[in-house]
Amino acid sequence: MSKVRFQQAISLDGYSAGPDQREEEPLGTGGEALHEWMFGLEAWLRPHGKEGGEVNASTPVVEELESGYGARVMGRNMFGPVGGGDWGDGSWKGWWGDNPPYHTPVFVLTHHPRDPLEMEGDTTFHFVTDGIESAIERARDAAGDGDVLIAGGASTIQQALTAGLVDEFLLSISPLLLGGGERPLDGVGPDLELEQLEAIEAPGVTHLRYRVLK
Amino acid sequence: MSKVRFQQAISLDGYSAGPDQREEEPLGTGGEALHEWMFGLEAWLRPHGKEGGEVNASTPVVEELESGYGARVMGRNMFGPVGGGDWGDGSWKGWWGDNPPYHTPVFVLTHHPRDPLEMEGDTTFHFVTDGIESAIERARDAAGDGDVLIAGGASTIQQALTAGLVDEFLLSISPLLLGGGERPLDGVGPDLELEQLEAIEAPGVTHLRYRVLK
Repeated sequence: MSKVRFQQAISLDGYSAGPDQREEEPLGTGGEALHEWMFGLEAWLRPHGKEGGEVNASTPVVEELESGYGARVMGRNMFGPVGGGDWGDGSWKGWWGDNPPYHTPVFVLTHHPRDPLEMEGDTTFHFVTDGIESAIERARDAAGDGDVLIAGGASTIQQALTAGLVDEFLLSISPLLLGGGERPLDGVGPDLELEQLEAIEAPGVTHLRYRVLK
Repeated sequence: MSKVRFQQAISLDGYSAGPDQREEEPLGTGGEALHEWMFGLEAWLRPHGKEGGEVNASTPVVEELESGYGARVMGRNMFGPVGGGDWGDGSWKGWWGDNPPYHTPVFVLTHHPRDPLEMEGDTTFHFVTDGIESAIERARDAAGDGDVLIAGGASTIQQALTAGLVDEFLLSISPLLLGGGERPLDGVGPDLELEQLEAIEAPGVTHLRYRVLK
């Protein structure tokens, strides 16, 4: 049975994005640093067309993120700048260029209908207007035997957790404080029951994996 | 050179105490569960006069908390119920009975002067009315070559971090969400620079240790 999961890089104070998210700083002030541990890894560089890089205890986590899923769900504000409103002339095709690093169907939550957007490399963005439950259901169907990744952002993850739709998740905790922004686990507790599955110590980050019991 | 450190049990959403702290629930609603991983350990039971118990990867962390410090600093609300105000008839002598589990000098932050309180087992409570910096300085003197523990609560830790007085800390993260309460790392970022020192995976908890760089 395929699972619904998420992986989020967070600060030690729990933020997956810093304050003041904007087109030039999609992860908000300081948010880019949440992924610092990842940028030097061979597992991150290779899919982005670059050679070299390190292999360390974070490598399996990045490989899981790159290729461990059959479909993805993301929020409107992860697909494009906050406040993008309706789709305008339809020229916005995500942050990732012609060949996004997903290579699966991606279901984007939005209030504004839009035709599916086929990109290079087998990524297709589908726009879902009837809520998180529907998006996850469609992603499950599309994923077949694969798992579904709730890609983010914080509010989409909160919705999925609150609706009881998440089976497992992994947090990659960086040794920094953002002091403000969005926290994927806010507004979710205290009724969620969790089980700690594993902790992975890696250079400059620790990865914690949990199962949602109910 | 002795260090100023803290150790805090926190929820996955960052709370060291749940909402609605009160005399019957000093750690707030749900807060007791933050220490669940500790209660079955031999290292916890022995100093509390009980036999038996387990030894696991959390054992060194508990031993460090029990005997790794030459002096302690704590906030007024950790010493007694919130809103205790002045010291009344002086009958309140902490939550811990005649022989508190500290066995060192303990410097209690308060707005109300009070004579030192000598307890059994070498614990003496000193009441400090001129702020966190003074309390830590006095604790350093008292600790000699030993380290100083900022015992808590959340607000005392925030003050010590913000004043740049902490050298290292350890967070024991339990697989649960409290959804509200007090977070020791709130109001502290984003300017604190941290280095991850180690991650210890243990049954039902992960311990993360950091050094404060500036």
